[in-house]
Amino acid sequence: MTKVRAFAAASANAPLEQVTLTFGDLAPEDVEINVSHCGICHSDLSMLENDWGITSYPFVPGHEIIGTVSALGSEAKGLKPGQRVGVGWTAFSCLSCTQCLGGDHNLCTKAQGTIVGRHGGFATKVRCQWTWVRPLPEALDPATAGPLLCGGVTVFNPFYEYRIPPTAKVGIIGIGGLGHMALQFANKWGCEVHAFTTSDSKTEEAKQLGAHYVHNTRRDGVLKELAGRLDMIVSTINVPIDVDGVLGALAPRGRLHVVGANLQPMPVPAFSLIFAQRDVSGSPTGSPTLLSRMLEFSARHGIAPMTETFPMSKVNEAMEHLKSGKARYRIVLENDLSDEA
Amino acid sequence: MTKVRAFAAASANAPLEQVTLTFGDLAPEDVEINVSHCGICHSDLSMLENDWGITSYPFVPGHEIIGTVSALGSEAKGLKPGQRVGVGWTAFSCLSCTQCLGGDHNLCTKAQGTIVGRHGGFATKVRCQWTWVRPLPEALDPATAGPLLCGGVTVFNPFYEYRIPPTAKVGIIGIGGLGHMALQFANKWGCEVHAFTTSDSKTEEAKQLGAHYVHNTRRDGVLKELAGRLDMIVSTINVPIDVDGVLGALAPRGRLHVVGANLQPMPVPAFSLIFAQRDVSGSPTGSPTLLSRMLEFSARHGIAPMTETFPMSKVNEAMEHLKSGKARYRIVLENDLSDEA
Repeated sequence: MTKVRAFAAASANAPLEQVTLTFGDLAPEDVEINVSHCGICHSDLSMLENDWGITSYPFVPGHEIIGTVSALGSEAKGLKPGQRVGVGWTAFSCLSCTQCLGGDHNLCTKAQGTIVGRHGGFATKVRCQWTWVRPLPEALDPATAGPLLCGGVTVFNPFYEYRIPPTAKVGIIGIGGLGHMALQFANKWGCEVHAFTTSDSKTEEAKQLGAHYVHNTRRDGVLKELAGRLDMIVSTINVPIDVDGVLGALAPRGRLHVVGANLQPMPVPAFSLIFAQRDVSGSPTGSPTLLSRMLEFSARHGIAPMTETFPMSKVNEAMEHLKSGKARYRIVLENDLSDEA
Repeated sequence: MTKVRAFAAASANAPLEQVTLTFGDLAPEDVEINVSHCGICHSDLSMLENDWGITSYPFVPGHEIIGTVSALGSEAKGLKPGQRVGVGWTAFSCLSCTQCLGGDHNLCTKAQGTIVGRHGGFATKVRCQWTWVRPLPEALDPATAGPLLCGGVTVFNPFYEYRIPPTAKVGIIGIGGLGHMALQFANKWGCEVHAFTTSDSKTEEAKQLGAHYVHNTRRDGVLKELAGRLDMIVSTINVPIDVDGVLGALAPRGRLHVVGANLQPMPVPAFSLIFAQRDVSGSPTGSPTLLSRMLEFSARHGIAPMTETFPMSKVNEAMEHLKSGKARYRIVLENDLSDEA
């Protein structure tokens, strides 16, 4: 029996309150982690508010976890006690289906999210299957690395999975929590990088993050000027985009890749796909090996999320700050909770 | 000066009437072909009726052309007089852009359709750039091969371009002019083949053409039973499809590929793409090398369109038959015109 202090919401939209959880025996494949930091992702907010109808309460958010291994189940592989690790969106996959055996554990239909029917990282400890506990390269700062584990791998995914060449011209729609990491990845991947934003105030920062060109999509004709030029556009926003205009900015064989989850269907004109052999695709975070490749790439290239830090005890203020849309660009909670109540 | 007899329409929806065209000197890169057979594609009808607003009149349809080389321009490469050849949707590309130099001549933005601003194959002779004149393998019957050049390569494209493995499970929506060739390609490609139709009368024929399973999508629950199972679904129809349902039938990393051109945008739910890393794509016919690969594959595997033959002099009856939706499955015109008026 392990006592764990955590921030939990009793129901949708209720404030997060300190509670004590009791964990039973550690399952053979599980790893227990002492949480040192935890990023806040927009999906923590969506889950807190039960936007997707899959939240169970009491709900403990948090799935951009950095910490150290405190205990290993008897069948947990490849890790040792005290090791610095990270955990992202996924906490479990079946390991035996076609997707898992093929390396696509994130596409396992039995995969469990770290905060879906489980307790997340706004806590002193968290547990998950060893597969999803990824060693953190030494060069990465534990205080800022958390957001790489979910937001980071989400935008890293299309570069690796579709083998985008460094000769490609890549656009990033939305310069926020995900987009500001996507700009860094795209730049270090060697691509020509275009940032799309509706906010002129982000222009200089977008350039510092790696954009070679910054376009304000509120201005008429921006997409038309780029007609047929970009090889991939990654949309990180969760509001409707001008699908027809964005597709028009894609070169032949170009790809619009969406990682921002808008519930309204996208109106995709078939002719625009057919005419230039274009693709529209989406992806969920990344596999265990992709997580490690992304962390290694980030370490080698000095890629790091720009973060604002809150003590975990001020989590409700931090959530309000996220909600206000003013976070620049990702919030990380530093753990100041103690296992003692 | 060459006199050519052709069937032309004077305006949208006017009947096709015999006319005499005068061709000037043969351009250096052009090839002149004596047309022996010409398939009728649904896009001949769309162009005749100016559905896409790009038709110029007098309009000579026909872009599934089989014939023999009658004359070669001074710079025409790789062909000899008398050789049996085929021509499809495209008659010209610039040869110098990134797409052409990269082998994607069909994605050249300066490409010209055989019947777009040019005279097509409902004629004694047709001219086009040597690039698009593809030698016909001996094993293919000139009387039925025409439809391979446009409809055939259109549905062959995704198998080759996306390197679909023979282990894949593939669905074909619409068992008509395109779909009945897609079933043959999918079967000979080695895949598990699912035909989707709204017409029970096509079940037996779909099986003979290569389908292992035939599904009537008018029946409730058909797509749900297949949830998460298919690796690629090719939609050949030009009416709206149940996008959400079709995407749901795709396995992780599955692809919905559209070659049927419906003018209404497809409502694509982002979540369905994101959740299972799915793709929606489209493509236009195929490149010169793809045309030749498709012809060679068809010859080796005995793939042939099922055709109904009309003499070219009865072209208006043939067009009516196409319009009625009763063609099983593709119409070919046999040339009975003479260069003499």
